[in-house]
This record gives sequence, C-alpha cells and structure tokens, in this order.
Amino acid sequence: MRLGRLDHVGIAVTDLAAARDLYERTLGLRVVHEEVLPDQGVHELLFRSGDTFVQLVAPLAPDTPVGRFLSRRGEGVHHLGYLVSDVTAAVAELRAEGVQVIDPAPRTGSGGTVVAFVHPKSVRGVLVELVEEGTGHRGT
Amino acid sequence: MRLGRLDHVGIAVTDLAAARDLYERTLGLRVVHEEVLPDQGVHELLFRSGDTFVQLVAPLAPDTPVGRFLSRRGEGVHHLGYLVSDVTAAVAELRAEGVQVIDPAPRTGSGGTVVAFVHPKSVRGVLVELVEEGTGHRGT
Repeated sequence: MRLGRLDHVGIAVTDLAAARDLYERTLGLRVVHEEVLPDQGVHELLFRSGDTFVQLVAPLAPDTPVGRFLSRRGEGVHHLGYLVSDVTAAVAELRAEGVQVIDPAPRTGSGGTVVAFVHPKSVRGVLVELVEEGTGHRGT
Repeated sequence: MRLGRLDHVGIAVTDLAAARDLYERTLGLRVVHEEVLPDQGVHELLFRSGDTFVQLVAPLAPDTPVGRFLSRRGEGVHHLGYLVSDVTAAVAELRAEGVQVIDPAPRTGSGGTVVAFVHPKSVRGVLVELVEEGTGHRGT
C-alpha cells in the first residue's frame, strides 16, 4: 500500500461562519467548495492551499462523529485525507496488515470522491481518510 | 496576511522508531529528512507527501511542548505549518489583527527554516506554525 499525496486536512469547528471569516479574512485562504454531507453529518468548506485543501467541518447535529469529537476534544484538527488510486484495494491491503478500518465498504465523500476512514488506533492517534478522486468538481 | 501553501503536518508520537515503521512499511511514505532540534525539544522525521511534508516529532524530554502535549492529549496531530514569504511581517500583521502569537521573535526551525508559532486560541484550536524557507536542505 502506498498513500498518495495529502489531499486535505479536516478541521472540526463549532461555528462555521466565524471560522470561515478567520480563514478568509485573517489568514487569506480562498474558499473553493462548499457542501453539506448528510451521510457524514457535516457542513464543509474547502479552502485551497497549494495542492492540498484545508477542510473546515461543522457538525449537522451533536450526535454525529464530528459533534462527538467536538464535545470530547474541542475544536481542532479532526483527520488527514490522503489520495489513493483505489480505495477498495487500499482497504483490503491495510486490513491484511492488521490495520483497523472504520469503513470496510467505501462510501461517498465530498465532491464525488470515494472514501474510507482508518481507525486512529492503527495510525498512532491520527484519523486517516483514504480518498479516491471521483468525477465531481472540487474547485480545482 | 496570506498564508502560503501547507508546508507540513506535525504529528506528535511517543515512539519514533515504531511510528517510522508504520509510515514507511504500512503506509508507504518515504523519509526525506531527519533532524534533532534541541531548541524545540524534538527529534523529527520528514516524509514527503506531494508538495507537503508529514512531520513526525518525538519529544526529547517529558518537559517540552511536545512532551506536555503527549501527556495531555496522547499521540496525534500537533500542528500545521504554512509557508509565508516573510515570517517577521506575517507576525506583525497577525498581531495587528489581535491574533496571539507564541513567538513574537521568529526562531530557527528544521532544515534552516525561520519559524514562529501562532497560539491555537487564535486559530480555533489549531496550533499554526509560520514557515519561511531558509537555505537548508529538506530533502526536496
């Protein structure tokens, strides 16, 4: 298995409007994509930063993975998303190595990507998202 | 102020050898730089991931910023490093906007970079490092 380049850094925030203002006005990043993902329970904003995205995610409800993360840890970096050429193959290879994968069956991510999450227990505390580019538009 | 591209994601680990093995063998990333930074109290490994680095940092002692982070939070993402063209100017602009900067005077980072950290209180829970490229070699 070989992770491709870092696709995005997912950052959990409680107040998406205030966070957007900070990243746009104070830090000078540019929003390139916005999407509500009911499946993941988040409202996301993507900012372009080189060939990586900074992804702000706010929970749609407290009882969602990001909502629970915020209750437990507060705002901060939530996950790292790496590109892979084939999510299904990557998941199979990681499981064969004893890595704990949260989504054994890949699901749809933002912008038409296909994604699967790897458990932070297997990546020394980092929640990793495997991202296979789809046909969607992500502001590139 | 405008942050440049994401330079690196800093990840705090307790066992650098075990973490290196995970990132090299299981995840397929390649080490491009290794350095001990007594000033920051860390031993770092840089892995290349597109035009971004994944930086593993292990504390040189428990009573260091990364050592205290590990005691408090456990292993995981510690900070995000963004390139800026001029750290001194960026710090001045951020302070003028009311942003709390940890290092009002920039200091030397890995690979001859010049760096300053911005307090996570001012960036919604994310510790941000401003990185100005120096003359050093970082495996590029």
